[in-house]
Amino acid sequence: MGSRPLIAGDDMVRLLGPWRRRGPGYAALAATLRSLVLDGRLPLRVRLPSERALAIALGVSRTTTTAAYDLLRDEGYVESRRGSGSHIALPTGGAVDREVAGGEGVSAGPGSIDLTIAAMPAPGAMMEAVSRASRDLTGFLGGSGYDPSGVPSLRRVVANHFDERGLPTSEEQIVITSGAQHALTLLLHVLVGPGDPVLIEEPSYPNAFEALRRARIRFVPASMRDDGWDVEMMASLWRTAVPRLAYLICDFQNPTGFLMTDGERAAVVAAAARAGSHVIVDETFAQIDLEPWRATPRPLAAHDREGRVISIGSMSKAYWGGLRVGWIRCTTALAHRLARARAGLDLSTPVLEQLVAEHLLRMGESVLAERRGLLTSRRDALVGALHRDLPAWRFRLPRGGLCLWAELGGADAEALVYAADAGGVRLIPGSTFSVDGTLNRRVRLPYTQPAHALEEAVERLAAADRRLRLGAGGPTDQSMV
Amino acid sequence: MGSRPLIAGDDMVRLLGPWRRRGPGYAALAATLRSLVLDGRLPLRVRLPSERALAIALGVSRTTTTAAYDLLRDEGYVESRRGSGSHIALPTGGAVDREVAGGEGVSAGPGSIDLTIAAMPAPGAMMEAVSRASRDLTGFLGGSGYDPSGVPSLRRVVANHFDERGLPTSEEQIVITSGAQHALTLLLHVLVGPGDPVLIEEPSYPNAFEALRRARIRFVPASMRDDGWDVEMMASLWRTAVPRLAYLICDFQNPTGFLMTDGERAAVVAAAARAGSHVIVDETFAQIDLEPWRATPRPLAAHDREGRVISIGSMSKAYWGGLRVGWIRCTTALAHRLARARAGLDLSTPVLEQLVAEHLLRMGESVLAERRGLLTSRRDALVGALHRDLPAWRFRLPRGGLCLWAELGGADAEALVYAADAGGVRLIPGSTFSVDGTLNRRVRLPYTQPAHALEEAVERLAAADRRLRLGAGGPTDQSMV
Repeated sequence: MGSRPLIAGDDMVRLLGPWRRRGPGYAALAATLRSLVLDGRLPLRVRLPSERALAIALGVSRTTTTAAYDLLRDEGYVESRRGSGSHIALPTGGAVDREVAGGEGVSAGPGSIDLTIAAMPAPGAMMEAVSRASRDLTGFLGGSGYDPSGVPSLRRVVANHFDERGLPTSEEQIVITSGAQHALTLLLHVLVGPGDPVLIEEPSYPNAFEALRRARIRFVPASMRDDGWDVEMMASLWRTAVPRLAYLICDFQNPTGFLMTDGERAAVVAAAARAGSHVIVDETFAQIDLEPWRATPRPLAAHDREGRVISIGSMSKAYWGGLRVGWIRCTTALAHRLARARAGLDLSTPVLEQLVAEHLLRMGESVLAERRGLLTSRRDALVGALHRDLPAWRFRLPRGGLCLWAELGGADAEALVYAADAGGVRLIPGSTFSVDGTLNRRVRLPYTQPAHALEEAVERLAAADRRLRLGAGGPTDQSMV
Repeated sequence: MGSRPLIAGDDMVRLLGPWRRRGPGYAALAATLRSLVLDGRLPLRVRLPSERALAIALGVSRTTTTAAYDLLRDEGYVESRRGSGSHIALPTGGAVDREVAGGEGVSAGPGSIDLTIAAMPAPGAMMEAVSRASRDLTGFLGGSGYDPSGVPSLRRVVANHFDERGLPTSEEQIVITSGAQHALTLLLHVLVGPGDPVLIEEPSYPNAFEALRRARIRFVPASMRDDGWDVEMMASLWRTAVPRLAYLICDFQNPTGFLMTDGERAAVVAAAARAGSHVIVDETFAQIDLEPWRATPRPLAAHDREGRVISIGSMSKAYWGGLRVGWIRCTTALAHRLARARAGLDLSTPVLEQLVAEHLLRMGESVLAERRGLLTSRRDALVGALHRDLPAWRFRLPRGGLCLWAELGGADAEALVYAADAGGVRLIPGSTFSVDGTLNRRVRLPYTQPAHALEEAVERLAAADRRLRLGAGGPTDQSMV
C-alpha cells in the first residue's frame, strides 16, 4: 500500500488547469478532479496530495479541498485510509460488466481481472454533456416524449457526421436507436425472414450472431484471412448462396481489428449489388482510429448508389456504453418503415439520453482525442507485456478499435480460458466469435483497462499458459513443436 | 387573443408558494413556473402578469422576473406578443406524437387535435429527479455502463413497490427494461415460439398485438363483455385451445378501462395453472387509479403460487413516455434467463434514465396525486362535453387509466375517423384494438389533453357525426332508428 505513486501538489496544479472556470468552490474542484480520473490523466491508485498540501498549492482554503475530497469519496473516486492518505479509485455503481451472449455469469472474484469486456469508462466530458442535455430537456417535457425516429437535433448532428466523412446525408435518412445492437435487431425485423441466407464475417461479433440466430436466418460464413478479408471468396458466396443480406464490420473489425481498403469496399458493394443483397455495415468502432493522421477509407455506403448499404453506429464504444444510443443511416423510405416497426419493439429511445449523445457528439473531437491518447498507451502497454511474457503468441497491431486478436502459439483457447480463470483473469475464447465454435487457437484481448491491470493480466496469463503446458504433459498441438 | 384569461399577481404569488426553496434568483422562479405549467396548475394560454407586476407582487427586482420570463420564453413555456402580453405555452421539442402500430403517419394539420395518443406531459417533479439522478450518475461513470438486469438501487425501489402492494418481492426478481413494450418483446423471445397459442383480451393494446404477431404466435382471443371479463369463457379457452401464455391487462384495461375483481383474478390464475400456462399481466395503468380511496384488488401475481404470473410495468403512463424505463417481476430463475437474453436484443437500459426513474418513484405519491387531480378534471370535462354534444354515444366511466371506450350509437367508427380527420380531430377506430378488425362501432377517447382541447374536440366530433349521418342519407345502422 505504501508503494503507491504520490502525485505532488505542483503537478496537481498543472493537471487541474483553469478549474475555476467550472464555477466557484469545492464542487468545481471536484468536477475537474473527476474528469481527470475518468479520462485517465489521474491513474487509478495514485496517491493524492493531502487536503492541506493541495489547499496551499492551489491557494484556496482547506475547507474547499476537504469538501471536494469528501464529495469524491462519497462518489467512489477517492478512497482514504488512516495513515496512508487518499488515493484514486473508480466507482462502477455496482454494475456487473458482462458483454457476451450466453455468458455463464461466473462472477469474477475480487482481484480477478476481467478481459471479457471491451468497454471504457465514461469520458471526462460526460457530466458537462449531461448538464447541457438537462437544460435542453425542459423543451421536451410538454410533449408525450415518444418519437420513434429520434430527436430532430440529434438526427441532424448524426447526419452532419456522415457529411463530414464524405457521405452526403439528410436528417430524414437517420433513425435514432437504443444502441447498435438494437439497430441490428430492428433492421432484421424489417429486412429478413426465417431461413433467409445472411452473409457474415467469421470471426465476428457474438451478440450480432445472437440477434441473427433469433431472426432464424441461415448463416453464410465468410472466413477472414490472417491478413484481412477474402473479397473474392465473399463475391463467390454472393453468387452461389445468394444471401439477401450481409452483416459486416469494415472499420477495425471486431475482433480482428482489420480496416477494409477502399478497393475492397468497392468490390464488396459491387458483389452485393449483383446479388440484389443489402449490406448492414456496423461502424461502432469507426470513430476509434488510433492513427487518424493516416488516410481513411471512405464509408462503405459511399461506394453504393442503390441504397443497398445500411450503416449502423453507436455511442457505446467511442463514448460510453451506459448511454445506449445508436443510429441507422439508410434510404428515407426504409427510415420511415423502421420508425413504424419500432412500435412493436420498444416505441422509442429516451429523450434525455439522445440529448446527452448530441452534446457529446458536438464535443466529439476533443473527447475522441482524449480516448485516442488513453487507448494508444494502453494498447502499447499490452503489446509490450505480451512480447515480454508470452513471446509465442502472435497478433497484428491494429490501427484502431479496442482489441488484439491473439493466436496462442498452438495452445487450446478454451483450456487456456479455464486455466486463466483459476489464475485470476477472465477471457473470451476465440470460438465465441465463430458461428460453429471453431477458431479455437485464438483469444480476444481488449486494451481498455489501465496499463498496470493489463500488465498484471499478461503475467497471470503467462503463468496459466505455463501450467497448461506442464499439466498437459507438453505442447497441446503439433505445430508448437 | 384579447380574451385570454389573465392570472392576477396575487394569485400567482399563492400558486408559486415557497419558490425560493429551490435556490435564489430567476432560475428558481423559472423552475417553479415550469412545474406549474407541467402539472397543469397554470393552464395553457393563460395570460401571465407583466414582469413589472409580478416583481411587485413577489417583492423581487424586475431583473429577476424579466430573466425568468426570458428563460421560459427560450424554452417554449412562455410566448409573448407585443401589446398582448405573455401567455403560457407548452414546448414539445418538435416531437411527433404517434402511438399506434402501423399508423399511417398522416400528420395532424396545424390546429388539428390529436386524440390518437394517450400520454401526458412530464410531471412537475421531472427536472428535480433529473438533477438528483445526474448527481448519482457520477458513481457509475467508472464502469462500462452495461448491466442487463438493471441498476441495483432501482431494482430495489421497484421491488419495494410490489411489497407495498402486498406482493413480497426481492430485488433478484426484478429485471429493468426499456419500457413495458420492450419488456413484452423480451419475454416473448424467451417464452414462446412460432405457432404457440397465446390468449389475449379483445379489445386490447394494439402494440402488444404487433409484438405478438412478430413472435409468429397464434392468437386465442377472449372477447370482453360490455361490463368486464368473461372469466368462464377464458377458463374454457384455456381448456380447449391450451394457450402456453396469456397477455392480460387487469388494471384499467386498455382501452376499456375495466378493473378485474379479486375473485376474477383468482379464477383466471387457477385456469392458467390448470393449463400449465404463463400469464403476462401488463400493469402499465395500475398506478393511474383516480379513486385510490376505494378498495384495490391485489396484484394478479398475488394469486399465484407457482411463478406463472409475470408482471410488467413502466414509467410511461403514470410518469413520462420520454423516459423509456419499465420492469419485469418474475421468478429469480426467469430473471436470470431474461438478463442473458438481452445480449441479443439491446444489451441494457441506459443508466441515467434508470436513476431518473428511481427518483421519480421515490417521490411517487406526490407525483401521482398531481396526475390524479389533473386527469380527474380532464376526464370529467370530456364526459360533460360528450353528454352535451354527443348524447347518443355510450360509455362507462372508468375508475382509472387514461381513456374512455365509447360506443358510437351505431355509427361506423372508420367512417367517423375519416370525417373527424377532415374536421380537425385525429382518432383511433375501435377496430385497431382487435386482432381481426372487428369492434367497428367504437372509438377510444383519451382524456390526457387540457379540458378546453377536449371540449373543442368533442364539438368537432359532433359536427363530423352530423355530417356523416346527413352525407350517408341517414343513419348508418338500423339499430339507430
